[in-house]
Amino acid sequence: MAPKYKLHYFDLTALGEPIRYLLSYGNLDWEDIRYSYAQWETVKSTMPYGQMPVLYIDDKIFAQSSAISRYLAKQVGLSGKDDLENLQIDQAVDLFHDFRLKISEWFYDPIPASKAAKKDRLKEQVPFYLDKFQEIVKENKGYLVNGKLTWADIYFVAPLKYYKALMARDFLEGYPLLQELVRKVESTPPIAKYIAQRPVGDK
Amino acid sequence: MAPKYKLHYFDLTALGEPIRYLLSYGNLDWEDIRYSYAQWETVKSTMPYGQMPVLYIDDKIFAQSSAISRYLAKQVGLSGKDDLENLQIDQAVDLFHDFRLKISEWFYDPIPASKAAKKDRLKEQVPFYLDKFQEIVKENKGYLVNGKLTWADIYFVAPLKYYKALMARDFLEGYPLLQELVRKVESTPPIAKYIAQRPVGDK
Repeated sequence: MAPKYKLHYFDLTALGEPIRYLLSYGNLDWEDIRYSYAQWETVKSTMPYGQMPVLYIDDKIFAQSSAISRYLAKQVGLSGKDDLENLQIDQAVDLFHDFRLKISEWFYDPIPASKAAKKDRLKEQVPFYLDKFQEIVKENKGYLVNGKLTWADIYFVAPLKYYKALMARDFLEGYPLLQELVRKVESTPPIAKYIAQRPVGDK
Repeated sequence: MAPKYKLHYFDLTALGEPIRYLLSYGNLDWEDIRYSYAQWETVKSTMPYGQMPVLYIDDKIFAQSSAISRYLAKQVGLSGKDDLENLQIDQAVDLFHDFRLKISEWFYDPIPASKAAKKDRLKEQVPFYLDKFQEIVKENKGYLVNGKLTWADIYFVAPLKYYKALMARDFLEGYPLLQELVRKVESTPPIAKYIAQRPVGDK
């Protein structure tokens, strides 16, 4: 029998959103359980590792957004065709983590002097990573890996709304190939359908 | 024909070491190219994404330590037996990244006030993660996943020397199941052989 999935995450895109895109893409049987920060404080200690997203697969619980996404990608046919293609996918996903960590380490830094220094470094770091991604998409015929949709594209596109909100600007301006990749992922019918009905937040 | 592997990394364990353990474990044909920090500055701009480790598989170059390790694990028989086991492996590997990032973000923080605040948080964070790992190993009969050696164990054990050196203490004291896991991984014959002849550094 097909498993029942339950995603627990904040009422945000960020690291929950690639999981939502993948569950939608595969038309899987899933529930989208969203927490406010206040609700999260009351359940945090009950979560394995004290963090979200977590995904229930029937009654088993799993954490870690890229681990979960890799698993779901395999179930819905968005993994690579062989080990080397999976290596390319994983490489792009980890590069995205390097990129998004620069933004969130700045945004959530509680110490003003340190936060200001990080903001300054972002001026070089953001274009550094976006140049790399644009280069990869150029070499891979409009996608991150081998000219076709894989979960690397979904993992890159889905959280962007959140990171753009943190930076309060659309950092993809001036990156037409990346903008086109966003459009392609988000116009994939089951993903477009999910986006059309997802809760409207600013992140 | 079997591929020829060339690993480029610093003369450190850290994120290069799981790759070295996996290449050794599989008795693969590989070269261990080590850089001093001074040498690295001269080649940094030639590396994809400006970082190491990178692995050449014949003439193709790949970055990202966990992506490379996942690929090598598949080649040497240390992946999971099915998708769910791979999800458990990936979950443990990403938990290790969460843990090691706490240590390196503290160690490399250039701003004294921020660094001191992070050091203070480490007093809770280090036992938080080690308790989780010890719990996982307890539930999984002495390994991180399903009572048998997988690349999750290698990814956890291999970099520890480096992170212990950063903290200037053996943070596994008081965690007998984790110490036993280290012993099991490092006494695996091809890994023990590699360790016996690896360059002796303090990290």
